[in-house]
Amino acid sequence: MDFSSDTSAPAHPKVLEALARANAGNAPSYGADPETAALEARLKTLFETEALSVWPVASGTAANALALACFCPPTSAVLCHREAHIERDERGAPEFFTGGGKLRLLDGPDGRIPAETLAAELAGMDPSFVHETPPALLSLTNLTECGTVYSASEISALSRLAHASGLSVHLDGARFGNALARLGASPAELSWKAGVDVLSFGLTKTGAIGCELIILFGEATARFAELQARAKRAGHMPAKLRYLSAQANALLEGGLWLELAGHANAQATRLAAGLAGLPGAQLRHPVEGNEVFVTLPDSMARTLSDAGAKFYPWPEGGYRFVCSWATPDAAVEQFLSIVYPASR
Amino acid sequence: MDFSSDTSAPAHPKVLEALARANAGNAPSYGADPETAALEARLKTLFETEALSVWPVASGTAANALALACFCPPTSAVLCHREAHIERDERGAPEFFTGGGKLRLLDGPDGRIPAETLAAELAGMDPSFVHETPPALLSLTNLTECGTVYSASEISALSRLAHASGLSVHLDGARFGNALARLGASPAELSWKAGVDVLSFGLTKTGAIGCELIILFGEATARFAELQARAKRAGHMPAKLRYLSAQANALLEGGLWLELAGHANAQATRLAAGLAGLPGAQLRHPVEGNEVFVTLPDSMARTLSDAGAKFYPWPEGGYRFVCSWATPDAAVEQFLSIVYPASR
Amino acid sequence: MDFSSDTSAPAHPKVLEALARANAGNAPSYGADPETAALEARLKTLFETEALSVWPVASGTAANALALACFCPPTSAVLCHREAHIERDERGAPEFFTGGGKLRLLDGPDGRIPAETLAAELAGMDPSFVHETPPALLSLTNLTECGTVYSASEISALSRLAHASGLSVHLDGARFGNALARLGASPAELSWKAGVDVLSFGLTKTGAIGCELIILFGEATARFAELQARAKRAGHMPAKLRYLSAQANALLEGGLWLELAGHANAQATRLAAGLAGLPGAQLRHPVEGNEVFVTLPDSMARTLSDAGAKFYPWPEGGYRFVCSWATPDAAVEQFLSIVYPASR
Amino acid sequence: MDFSSDTSAPAHPKVLEALARANAGNAPSYGADPETAALEARLKTLFETEALSVWPVASGTAANALALACFCPPTSAVLCHREAHIERDERGAPEFFTGGGKLRLLDGPDGRIPAETLAAELAGMDPSFVHETPPALLSLTNLTECGTVYSASEISALSRLAHASGLSVHLDGARFGNALARLGASPAELSWKAGVDVLSFGLTKTGAIGCELIILFGEATARFAELQARAKRAGHMPAKLRYLSAQANALLEGGLWLELAGHANAQATRLAAGLAGLPGAQLRHPVEGNEVFVTLPDSMARTLSDAGAKFYPWPEGGYRFVCSWATPDAAVEQFLSIVYPASR
Repeated sequence: MDFSSDTSAPAHPKVLEALARANAGNAPSYGADPETAALEARLKTLFETEALSVWPVASGTAANALALACFCPPTSAVLCHREAHIERDERGAPEFFTGGGKLRLLDGPDGRIPAETLAAELAGMDPSFVHETPPALLSLTNLTECGTVYSASEISALSRLAHASGLSVHLDGARFGNALARLGASPAELSWKAGVDVLSFGLTKTGAIGCELIILFGEATARFAELQARAKRAGHMPAKLRYLSAQANALLEGGLWLELAGHANAQATRLAAGLAGLPGAQLRHPVEGNEVFVTLPDSMARTLSDAGAKFYPWPEGGYRFVCSWATPDAAVEQFLSIVYPASR
Repeated sequence: MDFSSDTSAPAHPKVLEALARANAGNAPSYGADPETAALEARLKTLFETEALSVWPVASGTAANALALACFCPPTSAVLCHREAHIERDERGAPEFFTGGGKLRLLDGPDGRIPAETLAAELAGMDPSFVHETPPALLSLTNLTECGTVYSASEISALSRLAHASGLSVHLDGARFGNALARLGASPAELSWKAGVDVLSFGLTKTGAIGCELIILFGEATARFAELQARAKRAGHMPAKLRYLSAQANALLEGGLWLELAGHANAQATRLAAGLAGLPGAQLRHPVEGNEVFVTLPDSMARTLSDAGAKFYPWPEGGYRFVCSWATPDAAVEQFLSIVYPASR
Repeated sequence: MDFSSDTSAPAHPKVLEALARANAGNAPSYGADPETAALEARLKTLFETEALSVWPVASGTAANALALACFCPPTSAVLCHREAHIERDERGAPEFFTGGGKLRLLDGPDGRIPAETLAAELAGMDPSFVHETPPALLSLTNLTECGTVYSASEISALSRLAHASGLSVHLDGARFGNALARLGASPAELSWKAGVDVLSFGLTKTGAIGCELIILFGEATARFAELQARAKRAGHMPAKLRYLSAQANALLEGGLWLELAGHANAQATRLAAGLAGLPGAQLRHPVEGNEVFVTLPDSMARTLSDAGAKFYPWPEGGYRFVCSWATPDAAVEQFLSIVYPASR
Repeated sequence: MDFSSDTSAPAHPKVLEALARANAGNAPSYGADPETAALEARLKTLFETEALSVWPVASGTAANALALACFCPPTSAVLCHREAHIERDERGAPEFFTGGGKLRLLDGPDGRIPAETLAAELAGMDPSFVHETPPALLSLTNLTECGTVYSASEISALSRLAHASGLSVHLDGARFGNALARLGASPAELSWKAGVDVLSFGLTKTGAIGCELIILFGEATARFAELQARAKRAGHMPAKLRYLSAQANALLEGGLWLELAGHANAQATRLAAGLAGLPGAQLRHPVEGNEVFVTLPDSMARTLSDAGAKFYPWPEGGYRFVCSWATPDAAVEQFLSIVYPASR
């Protein structure tokens, strides 16, 4: 009954098999290997575009911070939601990688930035006012940090506003698969077709050991050499890059990643349905992916914890429960049997 | 016949086996897992000290830059050899991670800094002269970038000088195993007993997928919280850290790493012996590890290359040949048979 | 009728005279001159303590950013008010000088941080949670950015909270004289006696050409060498430092600075009294210094502007009017005669 | 007999007069004042071009570091002479302002970089090699740090090489006036006509209180907004900028600056002529400006020092004597009378 995080799950067996395959013999270092070439080709097909460059890294913080740094000069700012992972959980990585850029925080219910909020913020900006730090970039997260999704049209609307003001658009897709599985949209529809210039495409939470893809789209591919240089000097150009690419290849093969993300979503939906019916419990956000944020009676939280369920209290209040590709039916059933002991 | 680099070799099979073992079930994220705990315990035994903290990262550049940043404030400098990897091959990572610290370069034959050179540099420093950047740290590399070793007593002598001037001592041990295998010294003798405060203990070139250990010794362990914070904000705190620790555990188990390093050294020695006898060839540095730097007649370089041998011309002149744990006898023999066709 | 800013005023004639006096003959560079020595001695008397170090700089942004950087490591954060100058008007200087530290914003009416707000923020912090950026420093502004004052006891209460959580305390005193003139407190009471570790003591708005003093108090004086090093590498160690120190000496001599600040306050009070009685006008904050923030009927703003009055609309709404040491009675009278044409 | 530095001299009286004139009444802040507008117009005439932007700062370190930061991304390097002020005397300011860029050092006699040395360095670069930091900028100093001059044709030759490799060209003109006075060249000939993209035009050593002009030429003027933003966040946008511009206007008016630089040069020439004839003395570099670097018998150095002459031993050996606009004939005569007591 481990609902603490999708990062406490192991890697999917196919990822391990892929590593073993990639381990056959010597290969060029630093990304000049066949696995990485295959990954790029595979992504072009998956995202339905030739205008795409990719650099794999081993952590989501690295993916986000490198992506932001390629678009936000040190004299500029990134617009993001107050709850954004880049603001709350990356120990200042965006400020470090951008050389002292700022994050400017926007509010909005359920982790989403409303278009009117963005519009108002952009309208209030005066890039000619040298004392203030103007935004260069909009960063969205999908799944949001509240476990909700942005639809393709919502992202498009925000991107249009951003682009009209000269901002680029970054998407933190640490749980991109969960969003896609929920919406049934295509990867292209939820990224470049919706105006995303650079995507942090997370696979770690989906089932990798540690693999996040920084993907540049369209004109942003012109920044690939800069991205590589920044990755190198940040220690994110491991010599044997093939083992990162192999993880991604394994998960993307045959749509495994979407299947795994769908499973995680389904388990969270079951969990949420159970919790929602509990007297005194209240879902804090719609459950649209693999995360459940819920206010619980203290006694219930204690009972669950005592029974061995793992989960975290959340800074904004209530508790968070996360399901992963590896969450078995049995864990959900055991959990629900504790919540509803009468049903035993 | 791939002598291009020890990073083009695959990982040792035992590393892959260890990953598979570590993949059994859920585990806490960010280093709170059993593999990482086991690694710390193992290192305390290996280095014969309880005063040790460890943080694993996936690249040597990350290990070096994070280590340096914990000891070199942005207003200070690192002393290192002109050929040091941190100066030549890390795209400014030390400057980035220290927040703009400087590298001050020292000369010395065969990649080693002579004690008298260091002494002269330290004597010329005036920390009260605010315009100049004073050194806070001495960084040595063992194996050096010229493939030679520092003995324990040479490192001790340099450390004593550094400490006497208030500097800390960093050792870039990207090929630490090769140095140890050559010298027959113990890990403790070549690190903290010789005055090293922080070690980049490389295992990638020894046979890992990508695993380097930042090890703090003695009083330097007080900087562990800072090291973790810096690792986090640099994207070097991957959620599933257990897979990094597992690699190290696999290689350290039963001294496998030293066995592999010894094999690489032995193959390089054979290569060097063959090349040294060749008319017109000249070893540029003593071969004391797994690297051979040699001046070759152009025709011979072409012949080797045409026959399928992989190796690089070197910026300082001549060519570099590197052997790894995976260099088979057959490759060395084939190589030598090209060098000495009469012996066929 | 220039109420645009206290920075559009010229320097007080005594400042110019002091420059001329300081210009007699050669003097050592970089702060080893008699003017700077005299300044330090003078400040020790003024602040009633020997435990004080001073470094003069030419801009408030430099003073603040250097002060913050000596106390906030790149992995940490500064707590400040959402309206703080360091957040709103310094183009990311704190982030730049700290090497990527963060600002964490607190709310509170009239530009002041309530003690309970600070207490709650500090209670919610978990420095052991490596993903979040913990605060190292509290930065207050007095006069606040809303033209209000903190009393000595209010600052003491905030400082006690900060110190109890291991934070240092910075005071942005760009209008320190205005606060003192208002409260009748002594410089010591409003700084180190109230727990301030480092003060940006502004004199530019008071009547200098450009002179702000970074003052370290008590144990913080141990950071003076670091402050100098940071000043040097930021270009804030001009060779002929004596001309900065001379400005401060001229203004501090005989309490001139407090007299000038008092004049500015008095003019603002008159302006505010006049505006407050105007139908449709509303003071947005209590007027406790030399700044008036007021909501005005659009027609009145136009009338004033057409008549030649200079002032700015303010991002938070309404308009700002600022008086300075050089605001003549005639300007205030002319202004009021426009506001109340019937009284002509 | 103060030959310690041209920065220990006072400001020229005309500079003080200009400050007093600039002090008449209110003026817009942050560079929107008439003095700054007049300065820009004056410089366009002086440099014979409309394609010029200027930002005044109060220190040479600020001028250099801001100039470099506009042209050198954090992933790149600046090529400069091993003795360059930016390397030796700015406490890492270039690394700080560029966000961790590197300085790559070139050798050459008398502080000058030979064209063949630059050509060889550029030829050895491989911008596609991601591990190495490629240069983005060439920084020259004129007068050099050895007190010698580059001719316009020497600068042109170096600039052509730099531009051909895609590098921009910065000129550190802390003693630009001394170089011009020596060569009789025009400001344009020694700057943009010789390929200089950005100039640190120093006036502090020439006779200002503290005033250095960052001047962008030609296409580089497109970076003016970035320069201003960087100046702001570095604390180098003082509110009352008019007093910086006024200093420059005073010195440029009627060619005063060149007259003053010529005086300093002449005094140094007299000093050098005297010293050169002294048994046991040897000029270390040709004396082509206002600085004399000379090896002296210890006894003579002591005698001079005992007699009250101020000068510094130099890190590279020997002693440095500097003359300024304010060095009187009497000081030179007194000095020479000590050197040649027989002639008394």
